[in-house]
This record gives sequence, C-alpha cells and structure tokens, in this order.
Amino acid sequence: MNVLFIMADQLRWDHLSCAGHPYLRTAHLDALARRGVRFDRAFVNSGVCGPSRMSYYTGRYPISHGATWNRVPLSVGEVTMGEYLRGAGRRLALAGKTHVMPDQAGLERLGIDGQTELGTLLMRGGFEEVDRYDGHHPPGSESGYPAYLRAQGYDSADPWTDYVIAGIDAQGQVHSGWHMRHVHLPARVAERHSETAYMTDQAIGFMQRQGSQPWVLHLSYVKPHWPYMAPAPYHAMYTADQCLPVVRSQAELQHAHPVVAAYRQQEECVSFQRDDCIRTVRPAYQGLIHQLDDHLGRLFNEMERLGVLDDTLIIFTADHGDFLGDHWLGEKELFYDTVQRVPFIVVDPRPEADATRGTVDSRFVEAVDVLPTVLDLLGVPGASQRIEGRSLRPLLEGTATDWRGFTYSELDYGFREARRTLGMTPQQARAFSLRNERWRYVMWLDQPEQLFDLAADPDQMHDLGTDPGHAGVRAELRNRLLDFLARRKHRTTMSDEAVERSTAAHKRAGVFFGQW
Amino acid sequence: MNVLFIMADQLRWDHLSCAGHPYLRTAHLDALARRGVRFDRAFVNSGVCGPSRMSYYTGRYPISHGATWNRVPLSVGEVTMGEYLRGAGRRLALAGKTHVMPDQAGLERLGIDGQTELGTLLMRGGFEEVDRYDGHHPPGSESGYPAYLRAQGYDSADPWTDYVIAGIDAQGQVHSGWHMRHVHLPARVAERHSETAYMTDQAIGFMQRQGSQPWVLHLSYVKPHWPYMAPAPYHAMYTADQCLPVVRSQAELQHAHPVVAAYRQQEECVSFQRDDCIRTVRPAYQGLIHQLDDHLGRLFNEMERLGVLDDTLIIFTADHGDFLGDHWLGEKELFYDTVQRVPFIVVDPRPEADATRGTVDSRFVEAVDVLPTVLDLLGVPGASQRIEGRSLRPLLEGTATDWRGFTYSELDYGFREARRTLGMTPQQARAFSLRNERWRYVMWLDQPEQLFDLAADPDQMHDLGTDPGHAGVRAELRNRLLDFLARRKHRTTMSDEAVERSTAAHKRAGVFFGQW
Repeated sequence: MNVLFIMADQLRWDHLSCAGHPYLRTAHLDALARRGVRFDRAFVNSGVCGPSRMSYYTGRYPISHGATWNRVPLSVGEVTMGEYLRGAGRRLALAGKTHVMPDQAGLERLGIDGQTELGTLLMRGGFEEVDRYDGHHPPGSESGYPAYLRAQGYDSADPWTDYVIAGIDAQGQVHSGWHMRHVHLPARVAERHSETAYMTDQAIGFMQRQGSQPWVLHLSYVKPHWPYMAPAPYHAMYTADQCLPVVRSQAELQHAHPVVAAYRQQEECVSFQRDDCIRTVRPAYQGLIHQLDDHLGRLFNEMERLGVLDDTLIIFTADHGDFLGDHWLGEKELFYDTVQRVPFIVVDPRPEADATRGTVDSRFVEAVDVLPTVLDLLGVPGASQRIEGRSLRPLLEGTATDWRGFTYSELDYGFREARRTLGMTPQQARAFSLRNERWRYVMWLDQPEQLFDLAADPDQMHDLGTDPGHAGVRAELRNRLLDFLARRKHRTTMSDEAVERSTAAHKRAGVFFGQW
Repeated sequence: MNVLFIMADQLRWDHLSCAGHPYLRTAHLDALARRGVRFDRAFVNSGVCGPSRMSYYTGRYPISHGATWNRVPLSVGEVTMGEYLRGAGRRLALAGKTHVMPDQAGLERLGIDGQTELGTLLMRGGFEEVDRYDGHHPPGSESGYPAYLRAQGYDSADPWTDYVIAGIDAQGQVHSGWHMRHVHLPARVAERHSETAYMTDQAIGFMQRQGSQPWVLHLSYVKPHWPYMAPAPYHAMYTADQCLPVVRSQAELQHAHPVVAAYRQQEECVSFQRDDCIRTVRPAYQGLIHQLDDHLGRLFNEMERLGVLDDTLIIFTADHGDFLGDHWLGEKELFYDTVQRVPFIVVDPRPEADATRGTVDSRFVEAVDVLPTVLDLLGVPGASQRIEGRSLRPLLEGTATDWRGFTYSELDYGFREARRTLGMTPQQARAFSLRNERWRYVMWLDQPEQLFDLAADPDQMHDLGTDPGHAGVRAELRNRLLDFLARRKHRTTMSDEAVERSTAAHKRAGVFFGQW
C-alpha cells in the first residue's frame, strides 16, 4: 500500500462543496470523499501552522512535542512519522511545506552533525525532500521552483516575488500581493507555473519515478494560504457575492475577551475589519481552492493511469482555517471552529473499509490521529508511550464502539503583538482549550476563561466565559481539561509493555525489601 | 566557590535533632544548620528515589523530565546540572548514588556512542564519577567498594551481601538484613568499612586531590535507606522507646482511599503493620542516621583542615522520607508529609547570606530549586525555558518579597503491585498533588481524590477526598493544579529571550501578511 498524505495550508473546513459551500466547487475533493470517509468534525491541535503540523508529524499534542508556535524548533527528542517509517524500512517523501524548524542547539548539544544522513533527517523532521517549499517566502535552495520559473522565462533573481505573488492590472502595472487590496488581480505567473501546479508536478514526477516501488508521500500545498494571489482564470472565478457571508456582530465587540480584543488591534485584523478587504480576499481565496481542487483532479487521474489509485491510502486535510474577517479577525490562532476545524477526508483502499465508503463521520478526529492511522494501516510499529493520537482504523472499518467525546487545542501567542499589548511575558501567553459537542471552553493563563454554547450559539458570538450562570459548566470543563493535561504521555523513555514486565519485579532483580 | 551537595537516601524530615526529634542526636547537622538556613518546609517533587533525584538534577518536575519512576531512563533530551556546569567549564563530581538510568534507546536512536565522552556523560546524568554506588544491590564496577572490602579482609565474591547487609547474632550465626527482623543485629562489616564511612572517605579523597582547584561534588549516601543494617555501635544506640511514636489510627483503615488500601496490601506495608517490625527497624534507622551525622562531622572537620569549609556552598537534603509503619504503610511514594517533606539545610558562605545565618525558613522550597540555586550562586547560566525551580538566593540573602505558596509532587505507581490490585493500566497509574499551608490535595487518574486539612489534622488521619462538605476546597485546589500543569515548560527548544526578540518580527523577516 502507498500513502498519500495531502495537506492544504489555511483551508477552512467550510470551503468545500461537499461540506456545504453554496458556490465554491471542489468536484475532485467531493469525489474523493465519495470514495472514502469524510470526517465532518475534524480539528487541529493548534490553530497555527507550526504546532499544528508538528502534531500531524509526531502524533503528539503541542504541549508534548513542544514546538508551540511557528519558528520553534522541533526537538531532536521528538520522533516523527518519517522516523517510524524508516525503522520499518520505508521512507517518507515530501513535496511542499512542513514548517519544521531544525533544532540546531539540540543537535549541537548532542554532537550530531547536521550534514550526516541522520542529522539531515532530524533537521527536516524525518522527511526526505523531493522538493521542500514552505511558502510565503521566496523559495530557498531546498526547492527547484525558482530555477523552474526562470527556465519558463520568468526572468528575475526572485521570480516568486516578481511574478508568483505579484499581480498585473489592466494598465500593465505590477502590484504586490502582500497588499490584499491587489488580490483581485490575476497573478503575473501563468496558472500552469503557479505554486500549486508546480508542487502537483513534483508529486506526479515522484510517483512516476517510484514505478512499482511502494511509497509514502506528504504532498503539502502552500495554498490557499496568503499571499492570496490567484493566477488566471481562478482570480476571477468567484464574485464577492458568491462567498460565504461574513460572520460577525457588533455584540462581539462589547466586553470582548482581552486576548481577542488585543488580536483585533493587530494589522491583519484591522485590515479584515474592512468590508472591501473581505470582498476582495474571499473570491481570491476561493479561486485558490478551486485551483487546488483541479490539480488534485489531475493528480488522481495520473495515479489512476499509473495504476496506483486503488492501492493508495489517501488522507486530505489542512493545518487550520482562516478567519477572513469573521469575528472581526484575520488570519487564525484563536479558538473558533472557523480556524480549528478542518477538512478531513480519508480513502482507505482496503476491502475492510468498504463498509464506510462514501459516508460522513461526525465523531471528533484530530491532527494527532494521522500518524497512528498511517502506521497502523501500514503495519509499522509506533511507540505507545509517545503517540497520543488514535488510529482511525476502527472508524474506517465501521467497528469503533467508543471514541473520544471532545477535541483539544492550544495556543502560544508569545510571538504576537497581542502579548505585548496585554503586558504579558512569553511564559504567560498560553491557552488550552477543549471543545465537545456542546461547548467550546478556553483556559487562558492569567486571563479570563472563554466559553461558547455551540448548541444555542453555533457561530460563537456570545462568550460566556465570565457569565455567572455558566460557572458550573466552566468548572466541569476545567476538570476535563485537568484530566486531559494529566494524561499526556510524559514517560517517553519506557514503553507501557516494559512497565508491565517490570511491575513488582524487584525480587527477580535481587531486591528483597519489605520482608519481615 | 566550591559546592557540596549532600543527599541522604530516604531520610525523614523529622529525624534530625534540630527538627525536633526528642532522642535522635544529629549534632553535626544541627551545627550545619546554625551556620546557614534550615528550610523547615522543604518538599520533594516525587516520593520515589528516581523521579525525585531527576528533579534535583534537572531542576524540572517529573511531568517535565519524564523519568517518572525508578528504572525509567532519563531522556538524553534532558539537561542536567553537570551539563550546565560543563558549559561553563566546571565539572560535577559524584561520590555515591544518583539512580540515573541511561537512555540507551535514545542514544542509539541519535547515533550517540555510549563510550565517547559525551555518551558517557549522558549515560551518567552529567556526573563524573569519583565512585558511583546506587545502593541496595551489590555494588557494580562503577564502585571501588567491593575491592576495598576485600582488601580489608572481607573474603567474599560478594562482600556487600555477606558482610555489609548481613548481621551476626550472639551465637555467631549470620542473618541477612533483607529480613527486617534481623536489623537489631550489628552488621558484619566494621563501622569504618561501612557504606557511609566508605563514601565519606571517597569525598575526602576527592577534596584532597582537588587541592586549590574549585570543585562541585554531589556526595550522595545510600543510607538510611533499607536494608536497615547498622554497624556497631550504631545498631544499638537507640531503643524502641527512643523512637518517634507510630502515627496511625484504626479510623484510617475505614473507607481508605483505594490506592492507599492497595498499597497496604504490599509486602513492605504488611510487614510494617507489625509492632515488632516497627520496634526493630526504627532504632536501626536512627542508628544509621546518627552514623551518617558522625561522618558528616568528620567530613566538615577535614574540609576545615583543608581550608575549604568557608568557601563552600553546602546543601544537605534527602530524596524523600520513609513511612516506617506510619499510616499502616512501609517505604514511601504516597502523599504524606512523612514521605514528601525532607531535611533541607543550605550554608551559603557569601557575606550576602550573613543576614539569614542560623535562621529557620518556613517557606516552601522544593527539590527543583537546588539546580537553579547552584547555578545562580556560581554565576553559571541556566536555560530559563527548561528550568522550573527557583534559585533560593533571595531567601538566603533575606531579600525575597514573594515566594510560591504551595508545593507540587506526583507519582507514577505503574510499577507497583497496587496498580495490578486495582486493575489499572500503566498509563492510568498516576497522581498529581498540591500542598499548601492548609491543605494536601491529590488528584488520582480514575480514582477518587484525596484531601487533608493540615490545620485540623496535621497527621493526615482523615481523608476528606470524598467529603461533600469540602467540595469547594477540592474544586479550588483542582483549579490551582490545572494552572500549575498548564504552566510547565513545554517550549524547551527556544528561550524566552528568543521569543521576545521574535515577537511581531515578521516584517523584519520579509513577511508582510495582513496589509491592506
């Protein structure tokens, strides 16, 4: 069996036609969902790229893997999907983005040369790079994209800045996509040379080169993440009236939670508080998704042609959503379903999974579940004392009898201006959240709690975090959170099986304490 | 400045004459306390040797360092006192016990050869071994003790088993100290060749060899830990009536907490439920302490003779206490002050500490405070994103204005028979406890809580863990515990200073998101 683990960057759960979007068309993802299971309540474990992805790659919550925000190195002590696979003689290839930051200090401390095979693998989070490109920067030497662009005639030292995220207006004037007011324009890059097209080509090339050799590929697109510059014709495929209505209310601005209020003062939120920003960005965002869907169609066709489509476990998901002006916010991070909930489609090719094919499953699945699912279905052993997610196999086979009743996410906002606005230290800038069927609860260090009643208020307009009438609910959710945090996997150097073997084993070890 | 960090093994806080023991004489420790500060409410962060010691050596709570019980390897990812010192060109010498288990799997995973200097240091928890001996096993090749014994005429392949922990009765018959009924007998080893004498000799030899070279030494005795076999004349220095009265009541056996009840079925507790066991062991235990105190006197005299006594930071403490039959329990682990509270004396030789000399400080200090105190007083930088304890410097200088109001401890009882008695998995066998001035609170996974009112019930006889009248107190302490667990240091790969420098720094990094 092959594994194709596809990630979109910053793709909202509600921006798929199979998830109910009334205008956006994602025909190929809809078809993918019909071939497998669409998990309708899938959540990330952090609403930020870096920590969310590290949860996907380690099967552990951010509080356990420690890479709590972008740019925080993934400790050399963490074991990733690539390393587990490698232990079983398989490799994990990468085309696209991971956001893994190398733990240089950790390598240096342990005398590990970053140039060796092991060092390289640790620096890259266990991935073997077909082409790595983390997006929203000019691609570096790990990617062939700049050279490719130049070979296609984009004559520039930095073709990404000059063509890929630049638009061109009717007068032929060039405008940077870093300014969102310009993203109604078509990108200066031809669609077939765009980031999404290029990375799809990389995946196809990899599959072709593999031939009959089985593979595991992480295809990780940098879109529809900002800069929101879509190539023609996708830049003009949707009008502002064909986007979801903005979800916000004046009431939200009254007695707002201090951290949320501080976020709203950040530039991206101020921009997204403008109607013209929302009406400019959302169509481009939808265009980028439509484009991504078309390239997935191309990829799946090629897989069919290569004869691997029916032998491949396919997982499609995203690292988090995007506010796009909802709740008077831009970007991501905070604890709204808009950001925390993601698309999640799994096609398990095994006959055992036929029973669930084409169904929608509304149980809570999480980012941490991907790694144990992949290992389980490939028959590769994991480390039960480390991995905190659960294999989705019983859900895919329709045999699960019990499942988690809530999902967990957290935030480190130490790197954000909001922290300074509030006068907090980096260690204080932390939040921990549970969401079950009924409630979204957030515990902030040194700040008030948040609570939303998702039954009465599915859009999360009314924060009940300080409402006296809900003190009991908050106390109950606090208890659940305490229980959750206490159960994290701390004893990573010894397996449960080893503990079992060592239980009450002192006499076998020649230690005879306690005898009268 | 030199540092002498002395640890006794399994020494109760109340078994010092300066702490109020009415019979036991610890003249040299009392004198030490007069030269510095005696911390009267010092607590370990786990009532088990291994995790408690790893908290001393890393400055981190067990939930953070991950070595949650004896025999659990200390992850190669953890930074120990020796490594911090080494980074500043100093070394940490060891004479005695550490209980560090090497993380062989971690070394292997990272391709680190355990035979190299780095590998050896990581295997040994950062210590450079003058003589390592973990106790309660025949000493291995890291210790010169067996050879020393044989050179003194103890003719045996295993002189420890045959002489050190063996006693001899009036008829000349030899009895093993593994059976507590025999510990009224004198050990077969001469006092001057006993474990405590030998390790004191090692420390003295080390100091003599250092000459004028400054040093940091961890002198870590294996006594008064079991086997409780004391050499003459200490075996008979105290009578059963010169021991503390046993603290237990019939009421404790009614409605006992399930985990405590399961512990009481373990062999060491069954034995210590016998009056004859208590009356046999306690005098020997006191004898071992008296002996230890005498050797500390010898050591301090030698330090004075060498001219280093007034240039040395001395810390004396223990890794936990010993029930000795209190609460119908033997050994340690559970959340009673008997076990969690330890002796803790600090002599800071600097003039800045003169103001507190000879005082008793009743603020909560913890095992995790030792490492940051040593680094602070030596001017060696630590890693603020890792170290969870606090430097005691402001307490020693009398300048502290605020301090922690509670102490934290935890337990992993996965390795104990009690877990099986209760039908729990290793992952379930965990408890997390806070103790403040008034309350001792314990949260057990999948078991009832415990609560003791230390004002009304200083001996912890009445568990209010399920008392309806104390639901509010428990809820408040649960909230404190949640806050505590949420504040553990997870982001170990990046310092707070680096976060501060990176805050809102995206534009400097060429990323211009969110601009309209």
